[in-house]
Formats: sequence, C-alpha cells, structure tokens
Amino acid sequence: MNIVILGASGYLGWVNLMHFAKQEHNVIGVDSRLKQVMMVKENVTALEIEQDIFDRFQTVNRLLDSNIEFLENDICGDGILKAILEKHEPDVIINFSEQPSAPFSMSSESNALGTISNNVMGTLRLIYAVKEINPDIHIIKLGTMGEYGAPNIDIEEGWLDVNHNGRTDRMLFPKSPHSIYHLSKVHDSDALAFACRVWGLKVTDLNQGFVYGMHTPETDITGLYPRFCYDSIFGTVLNRFIVQAVCGHPLTIYGTGGQTRPMININDTIKCIQLAVDNPASQGEFRVFNQYTETMSINTMAEIVGMATPVTIQNLVNPRIESEDHYYNPKNSAISQLGLKPDLLTHYQLNRMLDWVEERKQFINEDLIMPSVRW
Amino acid sequence: MNIVILGASGYLGWVNLMHFAKQEHNVIGVDSRLKQVMMVKENVTALEIEQDIFDRFQTVNRLLDSNIEFLENDICGDGILKAILEKHEPDVIINFSEQPSAPFSMSSESNALGTISNNVMGTLRLIYAVKEINPDIHIIKLGTMGEYGAPNIDIEEGWLDVNHNGRTDRMLFPKSPHSIYHLSKVHDSDALAFACRVWGLKVTDLNQGFVYGMHTPETDITGLYPRFCYDSIFGTVLNRFIVQAVCGHPLTIYGTGGQTRPMININDTIKCIQLAVDNPASQGEFRVFNQYTETMSINTMAEIVGMATPVTIQNLVNPRIESEDHYYNPKNSAISQLGLKPDLLTHYQLNRMLDWVEERKQFINEDLIMPSVRW
Repeated sequence: MNIVILGASGYLGWVNLMHFAKQEHNVIGVDSRLKQVMMVKENVTALEIEQDIFDRFQTVNRLLDSNIEFLENDICGDGILKAILEKHEPDVIINFSEQPSAPFSMSSESNALGTISNNVMGTLRLIYAVKEINPDIHIIKLGTMGEYGAPNIDIEEGWLDVNHNGRTDRMLFPKSPHSIYHLSKVHDSDALAFACRVWGLKVTDLNQGFVYGMHTPETDITGLYPRFCYDSIFGTVLNRFIVQAVCGHPLTIYGTGGQTRPMININDTIKCIQLAVDNPASQGEFRVFNQYTETMSINTMAEIVGMATPVTIQNLVNPRIESEDHYYNPKNSAISQLGLKPDLLTHYQLNRMLDWVEERKQFINEDLIMPSVRW
Repeated sequence: MNIVILGASGYLGWVNLMHFAKQEHNVIGVDSRLKQVMMVKENVTALEIEQDIFDRFQTVNRLLDSNIEFLENDICGDGILKAILEKHEPDVIINFSEQPSAPFSMSSESNALGTISNNVMGTLRLIYAVKEINPDIHIIKLGTMGEYGAPNIDIEEGWLDVNHNGRTDRMLFPKSPHSIYHLSKVHDSDALAFACRVWGLKVTDLNQGFVYGMHTPETDITGLYPRFCYDSIFGTVLNRFIVQAVCGHPLTIYGTGGQTRPMININDTIKCIQLAVDNPASQGEFRVFNQYTETMSINTMAEIVGMATPVTIQNLVNPRIESEDHYYNPKNSAISQLGLKPDLLTHYQLNRMLDWVEERKQFINEDLIMPSVRW
C-alpha cells in the first residue's frame, strides 16, 4: 500500500511513519518544518536532541530496513500536494500536518490568523488534490475532541440523530470550541464533511484526545523518539506533570482541576490509525471516530502521577476560559468495535515516561513551564 | 450614532448606507472593490452604468444632504480595521463585505481558496478589531440561509434546543452548506459564536434569503441604484427570470425547479438591519435572525413572473449538486417579533423590477445568463 503522511516529523507523524514503514508499506513523509519554526519563534525547545530530519530518516531506513521517502514541502502551496499525489499514487493520506497548539493560537492576532490560515488552507488543498487526482484515496484526518467543547449532553461520534418537532435527521454534531486552534479544526471538519457530501470523497476524521507516551516498538528499535514538548505553549498537561515530578517542582494545575480530559496512549493511537487504514470509509462517507481510551480530571491525573513518585500540587489561576466543573460523557465505541484493546495510563506507562524524562533531566528548562498565554 | 458599513459599494451595502445616512447618522462606508475585480475577472457586467464610486458618494451626499465618508480599504489587511475603529468610534459595524457568489466559489480551486480566505480572514480581522478597540461595538454580520442547507427538520434561528439521552443543551444549529461560499459563511458563524462565547462580543448574525428589488426611498431620491447582477455567476434566480422575461427568452430553471428558496424584499432587508441596529445583541450574545419573509419554489417564482408578463419555461440539467424535492421549514419569528411588517413579492414589486430592466434593455448581454459553472 502507498501511504502519504503529512506532518511526518511531528509527534504523531513520526511514530506512525515508522510503524507503517516497518510493515513494508511504501511510506512518503511530507513536512514543512512549520512546528520547528513556531518553536523557535516562541523560544521553546523540546526535550530531545534535535537532529537533522534527513539524517533521522536515513537512520530509520537503515535500522528498519525501510524505504521511507521524505519531502520537505508545505502542502498549502499551489499544486504541491497534487504533484505528490500524481507521483506517489497513495491509497491513503494521513494528515497530521496542522498547527496543533491552543495557547499558540490564542497568543496573538497574528498567530490566530496564521493557525486558521495554515490549517484550513491545508485541508482545502488536500480536498482539491484528492478530488482532482484520485477521489478513491482515503483521507484520514486528525481532528480533536476539543472541537466538541463540554456540552451538557453525551458527545456522539461526529453525528447526532436529531429529533425535533416530530421530525428526524442525522446531522453533524454541534461543536463548541474554546480556542482558535480548536475552531480551526471545526472548520476542517465542516470542509471535509462538505467534500464528502458534495464530491463523494472518503474521509475518516479522528477526534483525538491528548496523546501520551514516548515508546513504540519502532522507537525501541531505532532509539529515535518523537518530539516531547512540556512547555506551556506546545506541551500537554501530562508531560508538564511528569517534568515537574522529575524536577521536584509542584504539579501546576490550572484552576480547580475539575476539567475532564480525554486521553490515549501513543501505541493505541497508532493502532487506531492502522484500524482506519485497514477499514476505509466508503465513497461519500464522512466518518468520525472519537479517538480516546479514557477520560480523567486534571486532579485525578495529578493523583496518579503522585502514586508513581512523590509530588506536591500548586493550583494556578486558570489562564484559559473553560469550565472547571462540567458534564462530560463522550462516546468512543467505533474504535472498540473495530477491535482496539486499549492500554490505559498504568504505573508501567507512567514509569516509562518518568524514566525517559529522568534520563534527559539535564536538558529540562523549567522556565518554559509556567503559563505565558492567557485568554 | 456612528455606523461603519463594510462592503459599502455592494448591492446591500449601497442601499443601507444611503438609508442610514438619510437618518443623520454618521456613516462611514468601507469597500475594497473586490467585487468589481471579480466581475472583471469573470468577464461579466451588471445592468447599470458603472460610475466612479467616489463620484457616487459625492452625489449622494449632495442629494441626501448627508456626510458619508468613503474609505477604499481591504479589511483583511493588518491593522486597517483597527485604525478605522480608532478614528471613527462606531457604535455598530455592519459587515456586508464578503465574496457573495456560490458559483464563483465553485468555479476553480483558486476561487474557492480565495473565497474562504477573504471571508474568513475578514471576519477574524473584524473580531480582533472589535475585541481590542471596543468590545461594546455591536457587530451585525450578513450570513445566509444557505448555511443550513435543506435539513429534514424545521430550521430554527441559529440555535437548537437538543434533547438527547435524557439530557438537554442549547447548541448551534447544525449546518449543511452546499457550496464553498456557503461553507465560508458557516466558518464565519462559528468564529463569531466563538468570539461571543470566549470574549463576550455582541453579535447579530443575519441568515438572509436572497434579496430582490431595486427601489428604496433613497434610490428614488438619488437615482443611484445598487448593482443589478443577472449573470450566471453573481446574479440571483429572480433577476435572471426578469431579464429573460424582458428579452423574450425562456425562463431557465435548473433541474425540475422543486428547490425551495427563502427570499426578502430589499426594503424589508433595510428594515431588518434597522431593527437589529435599534435592538442590539447583549454582551456575549450570539444572536441569529433568519432574515427572509417568504419561501417559494423556483417553479412558483417562474409562475409569478409569468403572471406579470408572458413567458415560456426551459428546464436545464441542474449544474449544481442540490436536492430538488426536499422538506423546508425555516423559522423567522425573530424579525416579526421585533416588528417587521413584510412586503411580499407582489405584481407591483415585480412590475417595478420589470420596468427598471426594460429601461436598460439595450445593455443586457444575454451571453451572461446560461450557467457556466457546474459542481
């Protein structure tokens, strides 16, 4: 199978790329290095030795006996993705190539417009390229559970059966994003649903929870890990807690910590992508999976970290406008129906992350942790 | 009151600008002339003597004893709208400034991306300008009934009370646009709802039906009419029928003509805008009005034209992907609750339009009428 992965050098792109290359698919990785540019702009670094991306790909191909091709391209450019599709004839395109940070998108007007422009235009370029070159290509697109916000009803998977004034319709689930980044993903979903409805494209939209973990079968072989961000702009809350635990710093909780978050282990994410690849959407189908395996309040997450290693807690004034005490009941039966057996956040998982960070403790910059963007 | 009107030289901008100027408000009109550029690009002309926009404003100010200021600016530019807000201190901003054509947006990838970029970025610039300069400014934004598509349930006004698995929430009404243009308006609505939810802005979003009519009290005084488009890119179906009737050409119906469309007279549109100005949204409120006064199938519209003047009918293969036989029951109680007494499409209204076009018959270019864009 020919697989094009967009955003190939990112946290998710990198581990998925190695996973599919190991399976002897023809894998083409595309990345514009936008994330690196943004990180330089925001003056933050990830916890890893930054290595030239071409060197990384050469190493992977040698160690996995694979033949990944890497293209440094911005898919927002005119005709770029079409040329890639014409040359490499993919069966599936997996799109991880978006600006992924809510705080970045809320840090300035310029970064907000940049987020909307990059993400929405990238999705449109993808839609037009597939529509014109080969509408049979299955598009797998990374969305986010944050598109839904925290509604007072159960969150279904992308669609809602509406019963209103005695009539019924199956409609897109109403969204309520709380950052410009999440808004950009709502725009993406609407555009992809449109492309399925009007042009008959085949799309799987993965509304994912936040992902944790650094170890996959392929990182264990190659020793080449994905980017680990723990800063206040690009880091996740669990990464922040782990770095704080390793440094002996109190775990910083935004507000009261009652916010509930969906999450998923990195290996389960890869398994979900594999399941989506193996079971493509039908022509004209806009299929949505809620891709998480468990939900947890921020306070519970801190408690679990505290069971693995001694920690203290510090509650900060919440820098975000969000509800800290809300109903939250999203469904995620699609991925389990396809066969996912999830790995939850166990002490084993936590200890592997704690050990990984401990080994890199000397590179931690504690100045990056406290929130710098408020909205 | 200080009123800024964006898209001031367009069909709706022009008549509203004269209406508010006549009432002795301070009116500032802003326009980038994007529409003129697009019409040149598509090689179409409107049925009017195109006159220099600055000359038109001078004439209006003389004949209405008004003091409209006209600014030729593109609000998508960095800092432009903020500078206008700082200088002119509006109480309300009325935004008509978007690429308004579904066929244009579907005519090429370039025009699709241009539509999304212009409309979405303009809305974001508007949001940020109001948020930063004065969040008390009431934003009145022109949306379209086409955002909803043709769902199988009653169409409420922007919001839907959802009852699901025994729980309830008030959620944004799910949208189902059928062109890239309509998709851009869905993006706009989501962005404005976000701005109200997260930043407490005051927004009235007007999901309008298509507007007809050339005569307002101010056009009668000044003799300066808004743009009348009848071509297949920018024209409305009723304008097309009227031009065809005047030329003795069969009325061309796309498909079977069972499509139902919401519509509103130009003077009722002005009254609705006035009602929205006089009754602003509250801080944090994303208020949606369905701004139309009647719905009619394309076939009925053709019949009504046929009652005013002899016509024949020609059914064309539908160039659009749309349902030609569908449930359609939108609500529009908000504008009647505010006091609108509608003028419906009567023989009087039709005859005024027929007469207006008849006077300009020599300028009609019949080559512009047949559909040139298919999707």
